[in-house]
Amino acid sequence: MPGTQLTKVGPLNLCRTSTSQYPTTQNTKELQPLMANPVCETTEKKKQQPQGPERPNSHQKFKAKLMQWVSYIAGDMAAFGEWMKGQFILLQILDWVLRGAAQVMFVNNPLSGLIIFAGLILQNRWWALNGFVGTLFATISALIIGQNRGAIANGLYGYNGILVGLLMAVFSNAGDWYWWLLLPNIFMSMACPIVSSALASINSRWDLPVFTLPFNILVCLHMVATGHYNHHFPQVLFQPRTSMHNLTWSELDYPKLFRSIPVGIGQVYGCDNAWTGGIFMIALFISSPITFAHATIGSAVGMVSGLALAAPFQNIYFGLWGYNCVLACIAIGGMFYALTWQTHLLALACAFFCAYLGSAIANVMSTFGLPACTWPFCLSALTFLLITMKIKNIYKLPLAKVTYHEKDLIYFWKMKKEKRIAKQRKEQEKDIASQQKKEKIIMAAMEMKGRQHLDACTVDVLQEESTQNRPDRKSEATELNLTQL
Amino acid sequence: MPGTQLTKVGPLNLCRTSTSQYPTTQNTKELQPLMANPVCETTEKKKQQPQGPERPNSHQKFKAKLMQWVSYIAGDMAAFGEWMKGQFILLQILDWVLRGAAQVMFVNNPLSGLIIFAGLILQNRWWALNGFVGTLFATISALIIGQNRGAIANGLYGYNGILVGLLMAVFSNAGDWYWWLLLPNIFMSMACPIVSSALASINSRWDLPVFTLPFNILVCLHMVATGHYNHHFPQVLFQPRTSMHNLTWSELDYPKLFRSIPVGIGQVYGCDNAWTGGIFMIALFISSPITFAHATIGSAVGMVSGLALAAPFQNIYFGLWGYNCVLACIAIGGMFYALTWQTHLLALACAFFCAYLGSAIANVMSTFGLPACTWPFCLSALTFLLITMKIKNIYKLPLAKVTYHEKDLIYFWKMKKEKRIAKQRKEQEKDIASQQKKEKIIMAAMEMKGRQHLDACTVDVLQEESTQNRPDRKSEATELNLTQL
Amino acid sequence: MPGTQLTKVGPLNLCRTSTSQYPTTQNTKELQPLMANPVCETTEKKKQQPQGPERPNSHQKFKAKLMQWVSYIAGDMAAFGEWMKGQFILLQILDWVLRGAAQVMFVNNPLSGLIIFAGLILQNRWWALNGFVGTLFATISALIIGQNRGAIANGLYGYNGILVGLLMAVFSNAGDWYWWLLLPNIFMSMACPIVSSALASINSRWDLPVFTLPFNILVCLHMVATGHYNHHFPQVLFQPRTSMHNLTWSELDYPKLFRSIPVGIGQVYGCDNAWTGGIFMIALFISSPITFAHATIGSAVGMVSGLALAAPFQNIYFGLWGYNCVLACIAIGGMFYALTWQTHLLALACAFFCAYLGSAIANVMSTFGLPACTWPFCLSALTFLLITMKIKNIYKLPLAKVTYHEKDLIYFWKMKKEKRIAKQRKEQEKDIASQQKKEKIIMAAMEMKGRQHLDACTVDVLQEESTQNRPDRKSEATELNLTQL
Repeated sequence: MPGTQLTKVGPLNLCRTSTSQYPTTQNTKELQPLMANPVCETTEKKKQQPQGPERPNSHQKFKAKLMQWVSYIAGDMAAFGEWMKGQFILLQILDWVLRGAAQVMFVNNPLSGLIIFAGLILQNRWWALNGFVGTLFATISALIIGQNRGAIANGLYGYNGILVGLLMAVFSNAGDWYWWLLLPNIFMSMACPIVSSALASINSRWDLPVFTLPFNILVCLHMVATGHYNHHFPQVLFQPRTSMHNLTWSELDYPKLFRSIPVGIGQVYGCDNAWTGGIFMIALFISSPITFAHATIGSAVGMVSGLALAAPFQNIYFGLWGYNCVLACIAIGGMFYALTWQTHLLALACAFFCAYLGSAIANVMSTFGLPACTWPFCLSALTFLLITMKIKNIYKLPLAKVTYHEKDLIYFWKMKKEKRIAKQRKEQEKDIASQQKKEKIIMAAMEMKGRQHLDACTVDVLQEESTQNRPDRKSEATELNLTQL
Repeated sequence: MPGTQLTKVGPLNLCRTSTSQYPTTQNTKELQPLMANPVCETTEKKKQQPQGPERPNSHQKFKAKLMQWVSYIAGDMAAFGEWMKGQFILLQILDWVLRGAAQVMFVNNPLSGLIIFAGLILQNRWWALNGFVGTLFATISALIIGQNRGAIANGLYGYNGILVGLLMAVFSNAGDWYWWLLLPNIFMSMACPIVSSALASINSRWDLPVFTLPFNILVCLHMVATGHYNHHFPQVLFQPRTSMHNLTWSELDYPKLFRSIPVGIGQVYGCDNAWTGGIFMIALFISSPITFAHATIGSAVGMVSGLALAAPFQNIYFGLWGYNCVLACIAIGGMFYALTWQTHLLALACAFFCAYLGSAIANVMSTFGLPACTWPFCLSALTFLLITMKIKNIYKLPLAKVTYHEKDLIYFWKMKKEKRIAKQRKEQEKDIASQQKKEKIIMAAMEMKGRQHLDACTVDVLQEESTQNRPDRKSEATELNLTQL
Repeated sequence: MPGTQLTKVGPLNLCRTSTSQYPTTQNTKELQPLMANPVCETTEKKKQQPQGPERPNSHQKFKAKLMQWVSYIAGDMAAFGEWMKGQFILLQILDWVLRGAAQVMFVNNPLSGLIIFAGLILQNRWWALNGFVGTLFATISALIIGQNRGAIANGLYGYNGILVGLLMAVFSNAGDWYWWLLLPNIFMSMACPIVSSALASINSRWDLPVFTLPFNILVCLHMVATGHYNHHFPQVLFQPRTSMHNLTWSELDYPKLFRSIPVGIGQVYGCDNAWTGGIFMIALFISSPITFAHATIGSAVGMVSGLALAAPFQNIYFGLWGYNCVLACIAIGGMFYALTWQTHLLALACAFFCAYLGSAIANVMSTFGLPACTWPFCLSALTFLLITMKIKNIYKLPLAKVTYHEKDLIYFWKMKKEKRIAKQRKEQEKDIASQQKKEKIIMAAMEMKGRQHLDACTVDVLQEESTQNRPDRKSEATELNLTQL
């Protein structure tokens, strides 16, 4: 069985030796806002599974091989990450930068990052360069100020960097290839881990991630510090609305409206090209189909909200109503809450709330000549993560356990199963205890009978009862099967 | 004694069985921002009091009956709340909605809520309808997302709803009976418990309530998201002041100035009708005269501050300087601090601070085309609740113990008495211990005397001292009386 | 030896009796945002040092006397503070007011405070009067609301008062000697301790000081509450930039640019006079040369940042780019972090970040007709204090241990030394343990040898190893010397 052998030797053995490098202790918790960690647990289980079907035929072999290859590129590419650890440092940093680029969408996958960079290059090469510089320097800065290595390796210090770099280029009024822009770009990117770390100190008290708050703070900082009327770094002019815009419903362009869904996803990175948005969707699908689905739903919700609140059609076509909802929907729908139909509804509610908030923040920010950035997403997602509910199927994952949608779901199911088993076992123990108690009574009764003080009838009733309460063999067998999984 | 019997059977026995439904454990603390809970403690004490006067005459009987009837409608109407628990769910929800309407003023009383709705209908029926819809949907939403049932039953999830509903109608520029407004109204009301719960997660770390922050956030959200120039939901135009207004002191209209006190109380619900304000004052007086007094004082302080800061007279007449001070004065003066003359002064200071802050926030918000809402009250009251002071008579009640002014005061007195008694007992024990010690010495001295080694004089001195230190019977009697209370 | 005798008797004996008056327990921690406390530790050590050189010549005598006199006026003048405790209350309050005036710059020294007041009088007597009134009433208010006496005595409730008083006078549009201004001045100064205490309740959760946040909040409150168009208290008009300003690099005036460094230091107190700034520098130097150095560096960094971001030259000359950086550089460079070259770099980074933030906040605030105040300093310093880093030489001092730069450094060195010694001792113990273990093995081997089962060779090898691991006498001697220090 070369296929299964490869699975064992390739990614898995590497993994076993390195679990300790991903810190999961309480002490380092502040440092890992979005840890994508213990790799071994699920993979070790996979190792055991092949032992079941002892002689697979060629079809099964092909399927196993395919699944194995999918596991190499899907999810968080943990095997690749492990393999990278032995490589040259520059290669490692490249891996971190690519993961950082994808982490904007909560995707911890270098291949997705690569595809996203391809989309950015398609959109605008100067922007892509700025994004790359931003991610690179944010990662380097995180290394310098001694942040958690595991978090850096998962790109958690890079995603703010790429957004800072990209959006500073997007909102610059000095035109493309204005090389001086790289100076504030590098300065702000290097400030990213500082602001991230500071915010994490606060947010970790409520077990909350920092999301893209550092990016929002730093880009707004740069834009408002320089402003539109600056000699060195002029910004695009944003102005508050001061009159009624035209709104003729007959002019609504349905193809453009439909196209606003991928454009909304593209606008997460400040891109208005529908093809770029489509490429980003592919990048999402590769890593996590659930993420992809929520991104699409979120963008659609944003579009609908825009229509409901009578927004100018141009803004809707341009994806400005979608990108915050995309992020909010991904974050609540399966990323930080385990995905159930209740959390799916919660994600929808959060997306609508986020769209409303988006419009509000855009209007407020325009007073200062600023865009809305992703403030609406951050604030709405934080609000929805702070709710304390007593609903059984809405389970907020501990921050240290958050990885990606599919794995989060597996973790939740496993946890639920363990709880159920623990409950069953407890009940059985209780049954057994009561059973023993009853048997004792019967024994005592028997003795009494020997002394001829009791009717035989009572003993029978007690015996019958005790038999009913005894756990039947079938449920015990089920339990054993469950624990073997 | 039918009267005292009724008191025992009517509200009290119901109460005993249901205390557990009001959660007071640490775990659920986050869920109960303003719990109006343990009803039994003080009422049980009342039960013991009638035992004293064993044969009341007809005058005493009448007085007892009157007091009993007052206890039915005053305070938090706990007996009625208990009785409601067995009723049909729609009736219960009506009770919660009415309590929610009154909770805006920190009053947990369905009768006050009913009177307040009457005042609202007098002002504007469309507003009243929106307020009712808001309270209703906020309460339903709280039930859906599984919030604490005790808090819902006390109207703690309704008061933000009524304000959201009312103020969205008040600030709408589309005119009355624009039925589409109910859509965002319902959406925002249903978002109330979400924002409340999220804020409570933060504020509970400092044992602070959320006040009307959810209302402030959501109404500002709606208004700034749509704005004045919106096709679907246009808002009233607020603009920053850009020139000097006329201010002729001789034009000051004293009757209007005096009328601004009830108008200020009415403006808590966005009502500018003095009669409506007067009706609200009655609603306050029924539940808690101390609340009524502080509301009046607060409104007067706001008016004086407006004059001191040279505000346009129209704003003062319109009650815009009063409503925040009303709320701040109620909150600090006896609600969250136990009422002493020191906290009364603190409440006055807070009202002045709140008026200042109100002017500041109104100017800031007008830049975004927004009204001040009750941000000034929230921020000033939170500030004054965060102070850490070493003053004996300023005692901040734990949030779980906050009910209404009179009961808070009783709680504080009880606590002080217990402390005093504990102190007295400790001192007595100390005295007794030293007494015993001295007696031992005397005994030893007596023995010594027997051995003829000591003067009789020394023994006398020691005996005299020990007699002085012995706690006299009178103080012991006092203590016994105290514990019986 | 009269000199050394005086050192012992003068400041030190006073100190020993009063340490308990500076509270350092956990309970009172919230009340002491910036405690300048235990005085005895280092001074007692000094007492031991003179025992070494038993017969000093006249030169040594002079040097000792000089050092003693320097110790009287430098640092936090702890001896003077102790002596003050026995004086008349008005004199004490004067001491506290002077310390409060200097605490703006993190200097706890009444002499510096006196010099600063001299500088203020040189600038504008009306401003100086307002500053004095502000400090006085802030201190009195802190006494009234029962704040920590040690913190008050260190001027920690005065520094916000002086800034409130000064800046309300500076930004008033009613001209100098408009006596009515003293009314809001007193009101806002008295609100200082309230806001300080409330903010400390929040910030103490992260062991952060409140900095000048109360001043920022209260001055902005007053200014925006009244505004430019007010009849009683009109404010200077601030307006957002709406067009490009001229920027001709050839017009850059180097002497003015150089002068902007002291002006930047003066602008901490709102003073644009270069001489006043120079006087403030003297006041800093007297208390702490490190503070002086960082203030100068900070002001220079601000100036450079202004040039980099193409600010109007007038603003740079006027010191508006400097004052926040001055404060940020002092706070990070040795005040709240122990001074090492790494924290020195961090202080530079913070100063640059602060300059950027300063420009941003000035633009945002101008929308509301407000100046930037010291918001940029507060926000950047808090951000840099919230970072969690795993770098050995960046050590954040616990808030209760923060005094002034030089003492902070001594505390850090002492702590490091203690750690090193503890480590050495541990290693030695480990060595001894392993040594004993080996000796046992050898003993066993000897016995074995006696039984003729082992080669003599193995024993020799083991003996050789154990000798190498034995701690040599030299290092032990070093250790003893260290502990004597």
